[in-house]
Amino acid sequence: MTDQIDAHIGIVTVSDRASRGEYEDRGGPAIREYLDRVLTSKWVEVPHVIPDDKEGVASCLRRLSDEDGCCLIITTGGTGPAPRDVTPEATEAVAEKMMPGFGELMRKVSLEKVATAILSRQTAAIRGGSLIINLPGQPKAINECLDAVFPAIPYCIDLIGGPFLTTDESQIIAFRPKKK
Amino acid sequence: MTDQIDAHIGIVTVSDRASRGEYEDRGGPAIREYLDRVLTSKWVEVPHVIPDDKEGVASCLRRLSDEDGCCLIITTGGTGPAPRDVTPEATEAVAEKMMPGFGELMRKVSLEKVATAILSRQTAAIRGGSLIINLPGQPKAINECLDAVFPAIPYCIDLIGGPFLTTDESQIIAFRPKKK
Amino acid sequence: MTDQIDAHIGIVTVSDRASRGEYEDRGGPAIREYLDRVLTSKWVEVPHVIPDDKEGVASCLRRLSDEDGCCLIITTGGTGPAPRDVTPEATEAVAEKMMPGFGELMRKVSLEKVATAILSRQTAAIRGGSLIINLPGQPKAINECLDAVFPAIPYCIDLIGGPFLTTDESQIIAFRPKKK
Repeated sequence: MTDQIDAHIGIVTVSDRASRGEYEDRGGPAIREYLDRVLTSKWVEVPHVIPDDKEGVASCLRRLSDEDGCCLIITTGGTGPAPRDVTPEATEAVAEKMMPGFGELMRKVSLEKVATAILSRQTAAIRGGSLIINLPGQPKAINECLDAVFPAIPYCIDLIGGPFLTTDESQIIAFRPKKK
Repeated sequence: MTDQIDAHIGIVTVSDRASRGEYEDRGGPAIREYLDRVLTSKWVEVPHVIPDDKEGVASCLRRLSDEDGCCLIITTGGTGPAPRDVTPEATEAVAEKMMPGFGELMRKVSLEKVATAILSRQTAAIRGGSLIINLPGQPKAINECLDAVFPAIPYCIDLIGGPFLTTDESQIIAFRPKKK
Repeated sequence: MTDQIDAHIGIVTVSDRASRGEYEDRGGPAIREYLDRVLTSKWVEVPHVIPDDKEGVASCLRRLSDEDGCCLIITTGGTGPAPRDVTPEATEAVAEKMMPGFGELMRKVSLEKVATAILSRQTAAIRGGSLIINLPGQPKAINECLDAVFPAIPYCIDLIGGPFLTTDESQIIAFRPKKK
């Protein structure tokens, strides 16, 4: 049983400007507040604010997965079409399995709000015992995307051997299939 | 004209436990029953029950396509995020063309039933004269997914040079564009 | 400011028969008429009609991007499952970034009309300063797909450093986020 271990969750803000201190990181805090509000099981944050550099993002994701033992790694930023947007490529570079359903659903819910949601290339992947999810940079979009995919996250982490996450069911109902 | 040839259809259950006989294969029979109910043209089943091993699944898919001449190969199981789930990777390894629309639509219809549908990485691909489609393992999900994509299957098989499949239109209406 | 430069837009009909003159190209003209109707900023067409050959399509896309400086390159045809359909593979071969949201949305809107929409493998990608978008071959499907994705195209081109496209808002409202 691994359900007594505090979940380590990586929160990675990918932004040239935020990493240089020219810009206040708003994505990382939005993810932290979301997890504080939704998770009832204990968790420990492993935060990073790094530039939009593909190899740097990939290194950070590898370390959070392989050394820090994060069951969940959430990135914010760097998912668009601009030359410096490389978060999906970094995620794919470290992935053992791609999880296309996350990106599809997040784009679908964002598209109900804004036509440019199709420009977000956000994806998700499995590396070892870690689920890595890309989110956009805007706090509002972060909340919409997490609301859409969070019901599936705890069971996904069960399947990759991670800690048993529980949620405040007034916020998010974690779906787990009934035992057979 | 190839419409007098019986269609060969590969049905591949990918499951460590079923392949060792520890678990009754329920996915393969669910696919067989579905095809019996829906297809009115003659078809011959080429069944396999194999473990969750990427190279083994890829070999099986290659043989069904290259040697057995299957126009359609349907897999069940091995599409999730767990370490042993490798069916999509095996499918991609043998693919000449990926068919992303199948996975997108199957996840969409499954998502109407269950939030964890986004964890299914099921895809589809073309290899030579074969359309390969990944389905999940649960019989109920198998039926929902096939109902969603089956209307497009006969025309897809036309386009890759296969036999002319016909369906019981009270069950599934096969869509083919009108001749110009 | 680059908003005084006329936008160069590549229109690439991918069709063995049209390239041999056996078949009238209807896809290219449908795209041209669409852009004439929707764009109010000045644009210059760079048209090609080429066979379904992967390396040939890739070369054409590279030239339109690297030499002709097209901010937008729209292909029509070659997106299906048939052996000669290779436009998505050619697009991926020249891509620096894949843009999965375009294909997802175009298949979704086409699927509301016809079950075989899932057979279209159309995608989109970024190469340098160019957004490349695959469309199907049928004029009706071309219009449906462009209606779905066009609201996001001008902002995408802003993000990759291209000219400032404007639209006739009675036709298409180009979405751009408000300045902060």
